[in-house]
Amino acid sequence: MANKYTLLKKDGLAKRAEFETVHGTVQTPVFMNVGTAAAIKGAVDTDDLKNIGCQIQLSNTYHLHVRPGDELVRKMGGVRKFMNWDGPVLTDSGGFQVFSLASLRKIKEEGVTFNSHVDGRKIFMGPEESMQIQSNLGSTIAMAFDECPPALAERKYVKASVDRTYRWLLRCRDELDRLNLLEDTVNRDQLLFGINQGAIYEDIRTEHADMISELDLPGYAIGGLAVGESHEQMYAVLDAVVPHLPENKPVYLMGVGTPANILEAVDRGVDFFDCVYPSRNGRHGHVYTKYGKLNLFNQKFETDDKPIEDGCQCPACSRHSRAYIRHLLKAKEMLGMRLCVLHNLWFYNHLMADIRCAIDEGRYKEFKKECLEAYGTDTK
Amino acid sequence: MANKYTLLKKDGLAKRAEFETVHGTVQTPVFMNVGTAAAIKGAVDTDDLKNIGCQIQLSNTYHLHVRPGDELVRKMGGVRKFMNWDGPVLTDSGGFQVFSLASLRKIKEEGVTFNSHVDGRKIFMGPEESMQIQSNLGSTIAMAFDECPPALAERKYVKASVDRTYRWLLRCRDELDRLNLLEDTVNRDQLLFGINQGAIYEDIRTEHADMISELDLPGYAIGGLAVGESHEQMYAVLDAVVPHLPENKPVYLMGVGTPANILEAVDRGVDFFDCVYPSRNGRHGHVYTKYGKLNLFNQKFETDDKPIEDGCQCPACSRHSRAYIRHLLKAKEMLGMRLCVLHNLWFYNHLMADIRCAIDEGRYKEFKKECLEAYGTDTK
Repeated sequence: MANKYTLLKKDGLAKRAEFETVHGTVQTPVFMNVGTAAAIKGAVDTDDLKNIGCQIQLSNTYHLHVRPGDELVRKMGGVRKFMNWDGPVLTDSGGFQVFSLASLRKIKEEGVTFNSHVDGRKIFMGPEESMQIQSNLGSTIAMAFDECPPALAERKYVKASVDRTYRWLLRCRDELDRLNLLEDTVNRDQLLFGINQGAIYEDIRTEHADMISELDLPGYAIGGLAVGESHEQMYAVLDAVVPHLPENKPVYLMGVGTPANILEAVDRGVDFFDCVYPSRNGRHGHVYTKYGKLNLFNQKFETDDKPIEDGCQCPACSRHSRAYIRHLLKAKEMLGMRLCVLHNLWFYNHLMADIRCAIDEGRYKEFKKECLEAYGTDTK
Repeated sequence: MANKYTLLKKDGLAKRAEFETVHGTVQTPVFMNVGTAAAIKGAVDTDDLKNIGCQIQLSNTYHLHVRPGDELVRKMGGVRKFMNWDGPVLTDSGGFQVFSLASLRKIKEEGVTFNSHVDGRKIFMGPEESMQIQSNLGSTIAMAFDECPPALAERKYVKASVDRTYRWLLRCRDELDRLNLLEDTVNRDQLLFGINQGAIYEDIRTEHADMISELDLPGYAIGGLAVGESHEQMYAVLDAVVPHLPENKPVYLMGVGTPANILEAVDRGVDFFDCVYPSRNGRHGHVYTKYGKLNLFNQKFETDDKPIEDGCQCPACSRHSRAYIRHLLKAKEMLGMRLCVLHNLWFYNHLMADIRCAIDEGRYKEFKKECLEAYGTDTK
């Protein structure tokens, strides 16, 4: 048995679980740190991730396919060995990047033809290709290849797209089953998560959720959110969709989000999250604290000898002042970005630990309320 | 007594010594890691420096005066507290940067007027200003304010410049004596090192060395080398000048250099070095090894699963392959630069440790010969 999801506790709809994989056990709710090109942006190494309390990280199939190439990563023993990370890794399908980064896309039933954002060369990716690439990367969890239509796309387009995404899911499942049986596959226990789509059309979403749930996959994601719709629309979709996904499987809300988004989504039954906010904001000197977000470029921190957040034990707060980090950022010293990213990843991972603790202790609603009052609700 | 230089051993002209300061004892020969703007470029933190075996670091007076400002650094408790480094720090005088970075310079007996390279504003710096700034920075060792004439400048210009640099040294000494007596000075034990100049004119150099040696300062530097002359010219200057500096004081060769330069200079009696090569080269993927320098962008490292240097215990080599680091560099991930800089600083600091050991054991000539045969002589 290559994976096992154990629901330890429910508090309202919030789930506290553990997810066992061949690469280690993940305590959920969990935040996956984003290592797009097999590296966390901001000069953060995998041993830093350990110190931060990171349990699982995400890498991007599209980026690694384009550079250095998934065949190279396979030769190096897969993405985990390549970047020296012995915990679980989830790879996305490449679909989102194909639809957001690449140019001159052409979508057909077989898959998508597009131009690489690095060198412009023409690439074809369909469900089979995405599985083959992810199999080469040897991640713990592979994501199904899907189309992520714009949040506000027309109903007719979304319906046709979701139907195709379902057909693609069946092809992904068959192809990964085949790949996992091959002798020389990097990770023969690679797991497939299906992805629910449907933009903000709740009936399309729930019908699709019912269909993919029947496939009894190891986990399910909700995709196509945080791409232009309001937070209220996002929460409404979660309210509608999560009850249509199996309770005894991990639910992953892709690309989300702010601390407030995560707190709300956990309250609706979500287990897994990933988001570039902590690293991207960190690189711009925006740091999360229990009082809300600070912009360290602000002049008022010029001679502030306090840490980013008092009491924080992260590598930045335990050693450096706001004044010093502000100076580094202004002098464009990479160390400034590294310290802010380390702090933000620490903040996110420790928020998740606090969330797990609150669910364990049956006080999640109260915990969420306290956090939202302290942070505010929009701290992306 | 704020400092004490103890000559432990001589092996030919090579000196093995220890230099005690109020901020800790330095074992020499030593390489000072360059933290220009109170940060090591390449996202390297002061705790990384400790792991690398760094004993002392250098910060740049000109850069810190321009940004964030030495008054701010003083408010934050001095540069050591500001960047959280509890070992010794040497600050340069700002002179070299004034003459190399700033524009529209005007040199007078009082000092130099120039325009900031950051915002263009007009700044005046003379011996007193340089000492005041360095006093605000609170470094362990302050360098005298000097003019660094071009290596190939005309004799007449160099003579006049060196005479002025001598008069500036007297003013530096008097001003630092005054500042060290003030109640609210950050480091009242701040030491002054004089700087020998004279381009490649050996008679001007030795006469000047004799004059500054009589001042009985805590240490002496040789400046104005590695600025355009050949390596042979540099070594000839060292052959001429070092015997004119006191043997019982540290001798610091400023801004030098390649591993080969350091090996040759130690053999001529130099104690202290600093150079941007390891960090600058690291940021460009050029890494030092016992076999010579490697360019990790080279295609031949694409699937090379060996560390940068086999047997190396640095944070890069102990965790990552050449193939992975090459990928990071090509993908412009900051982590690639950080790993290469960490490796190079490790290489330099461990080279110095090996040099000290070889002198201790009376086999320095042999050690130098082995290294030069292994590295080649020009590995900047």
